[in-house]
Amino acid sequence: MRAVDIIQKKRNGGSLTNEELSFLIQGYSRGEIPDYQMSAWAMAVFFRGMNAGETAALTMAMAESGDLVDLTPIRGIKVDKHSTGGVGDKTSLVIGPLVASCGVPVAKMSGRGLGHTGGTIDKMESMAGFRSELSREDFIAQVNDIGVAIIGQSGNLAPADKKLYALRDVTATVESIPLIASSVMSKKIAAGADAIVLDVKTGSGAFMKTLDDSEKLAMAMVEIGTQVGRRTAALISDMDQPLGFAIGNALEVREAIDTLHGRGPDDLTSLCIALASHMVVLGGQAGSLEEAEAMLREKLRSGEALAKFKQFVAAQGGNPDVADDATLLPQAPHIVEVPAPKSGHVHAIQAEELGLAAMLLGAGRETKDSVIDYAVGITLQRKVGEEVREGQTIALLHVREEGAAVQAVLKRVQEAYTIDEAAVLPSPLLLSIVTEQGVKRF
Amino acid sequence: MRAVDIIQKKRNGGSLTNEELSFLIQGYSRGEIPDYQMSAWAMAVFFRGMNAGETAALTMAMAESGDLVDLTPIRGIKVDKHSTGGVGDKTSLVIGPLVASCGVPVAKMSGRGLGHTGGTIDKMESMAGFRSELSREDFIAQVNDIGVAIIGQSGNLAPADKKLYALRDVTATVESIPLIASSVMSKKIAAGADAIVLDVKTGSGAFMKTLDDSEKLAMAMVEIGTQVGRRTAALISDMDQPLGFAIGNALEVREAIDTLHGRGPDDLTSLCIALASHMVVLGGQAGSLEEAEAMLREKLRSGEALAKFKQFVAAQGGNPDVADDATLLPQAPHIVEVPAPKSGHVHAIQAEELGLAAMLLGAGRETKDSVIDYAVGITLQRKVGEEVREGQTIALLHVREEGAAVQAVLKRVQEAYTIDEAAVLPSPLLLSIVTEQGVKRF
Repeated sequence: MRAVDIIQKKRNGGSLTNEELSFLIQGYSRGEIPDYQMSAWAMAVFFRGMNAGETAALTMAMAESGDLVDLTPIRGIKVDKHSTGGVGDKTSLVIGPLVASCGVPVAKMSGRGLGHTGGTIDKMESMAGFRSELSREDFIAQVNDIGVAIIGQSGNLAPADKKLYALRDVTATVESIPLIASSVMSKKIAAGADAIVLDVKTGSGAFMKTLDDSEKLAMAMVEIGTQVGRRTAALISDMDQPLGFAIGNALEVREAIDTLHGRGPDDLTSLCIALASHMVVLGGQAGSLEEAEAMLREKLRSGEALAKFKQFVAAQGGNPDVADDATLLPQAPHIVEVPAPKSGHVHAIQAEELGLAAMLLGAGRETKDSVIDYAVGITLQRKVGEEVREGQTIALLHVREEGAAVQAVLKRVQEAYTIDEAAVLPSPLLLSIVTEQGVKRF
Repeated sequence: MRAVDIIQKKRNGGSLTNEELSFLIQGYSRGEIPDYQMSAWAMAVFFRGMNAGETAALTMAMAESGDLVDLTPIRGIKVDKHSTGGVGDKTSLVIGPLVASCGVPVAKMSGRGLGHTGGTIDKMESMAGFRSELSREDFIAQVNDIGVAIIGQSGNLAPADKKLYALRDVTATVESIPLIASSVMSKKIAAGADAIVLDVKTGSGAFMKTLDDSEKLAMAMVEIGTQVGRRTAALISDMDQPLGFAIGNALEVREAIDTLHGRGPDDLTSLCIALASHMVVLGGQAGSLEEAEAMLREKLRSGEALAKFKQFVAAQGGNPDVADDATLLPQAPHIVEVPAPKSGHVHAIQAEELGLAAMLLGAGRETKDSVIDYAVGITLQRKVGEEVREGQTIALLHVREEGAAVQAVLKRVQEAYTIDEAAVLPSPLLLSIVTEQGVKRF
């Protein structure tokens, strides 16, 4: 078998066999197939696409290129959740304890933030003492014991995907639905999930700009799940503004706690319940989405979800009292008001810009080695659909020290807001659900 | 400017500017743009194509990546000839002196053979004493003096093309008409040609399998010539069998000499006259192809072309008497007859297979370091359209020593012949002419 023949077959519109795809991925992993052949192949895939069988075979080949986490010692159906990225997305902090309180084991590996996106691990580490590194044994024991553990990604998960993604990034071959879908799914499968719920963002701030494309990506991922025996569902949610009000590590933990108290922002609460409902159904703890939703709302109302959060924080070395006293979280010494630059209605808030603004305040990493300031960030005071008069506060900057740099960030936040005279209704958050049964638009 | 943006622009169907193409080629030449970006770009070009302006800009960028041979000290319009490759193709040996005898200067750089294809330089070196390495000054002086010189490629001609071609070869991006066209033309332009005549082969034995594709390639090359001020014409000729009867270095020289005597094979003579006519017209020595053809036939009849050949061989250190006494050329000690495996009519002779068979006898190079045996090769006794009875000789093997290896080659030659009961007419050799004025099929 020769790589050049496989490239040519795909270039000419052929379907690659499982053997051909694993030859390619194994060879690439081992450094026997060079980057220049993989990039030509990826470009051929960009133009020719891949069918469901090919996409599943590629996914499995990438998953098998490194460690395959064995979660079988954990009782129950392990349901993982993945988001295609979002600013202010603290859903994992809410969903982990919430779903665990319904009896679905949550054994989650999360990442750190880079650039404008935050990472769940960084957010959790803003709670003093919180340990995100557990041994494999302790991780499994904790899930069996209290139902939830969230740790940093360790080991060598889907290294072929990592290598291929870095190559695609510099060869204009990122925007291929089968390649994106297999990249996401290979990591989730390597991490040991039995079932997967996906949060696919759509809109100007997201990777997929249109609902149609987002649905295609969701369908490709659900199809992979079906092919490889991991039941998968995908929710498509709007991203024409950040989720919730808070951006920044401790600020987001506080908002997650508020949500577990039942007093969180509407959009965040809705998305958490929607994602968690699918997880509870796939985890076999409810027979229908309606039943799951009722169960979840009851867990929030009764305080069981919050109690699970405390248990989880304590188990990983944090102080569970943060759940009742937000002043125990790091707090920035200064708050700077961002005035509306003009009067009108908020039409959109560029999430990526706000993510970058928060990063510039110190909440995120500009490079892998940057040190995070857990206390700083942004809290939004006005969201899409709301009216504002010139000079009124649209957001607060939580800063370490005032100065020219903060003024530059303030301007950036103002520019991230689109304010227009005409009144506008916020677009609905949840747009579509994709499951094995098909696509259902709201 | 970033390579990834240029790749993406082409991927999305955009047209690249001259600046973008020269950024790409210069960067690649200097090793600043890696192979993996160039192969992704080449695959995008495979799918999206390039317009005439892009193709010309790419050609010039590749030509300018190395030495640009300055032939201006040579008086007259320098017309170069290029063939897209063929087995038994000794046209350069005939055309060089023939065209020079009409007053068109021939300052030609040729290559050596590799694999199944022979090289003009190897063929000429089968004449004892022939020197294919001349200094730039001697090369120019010889053309100004006697009208013709043929030397091996020296210097650093279009190195970007060489590097890109090697990359395309292993990334399934060879079969792109604008990339093939710019590759051929960049080398001819770097070699200093004022005008170019192309011999484009078509058919099962050629790179381009159909007449339509061959015409498209020819049009792309003629269009490049027009864009960069080098008048270009292309002849498309059939390749369902080798040209002439002889394959192997000294055997081909002998056949070229026969042709200059006016007693060469019909197909070889026709193709030489057709290509030479275009060269004489582009070289400004005849007002029409008819006039040029009459002049060329007279040069063959009168012996002036043969006299020019002798002058040329003597000038480069060879013995001009070979032109009158073929026994002065190396001759193989043994001749082995290849019998027809069955009775019928010859329908096709796979040229590439015969090229490989000749190579196995020692006439060609299996690797760059192989040593050539000038004497050995194959002479065909039957060509397409002829009838043959089982056991009659269809070809002769000129071999160094007999043995099992020769028997294997004999079998290979037999298998290269398609013999069938039905009578068949040989297809015409010349199929189409492409010039600035358009395409003319015969």
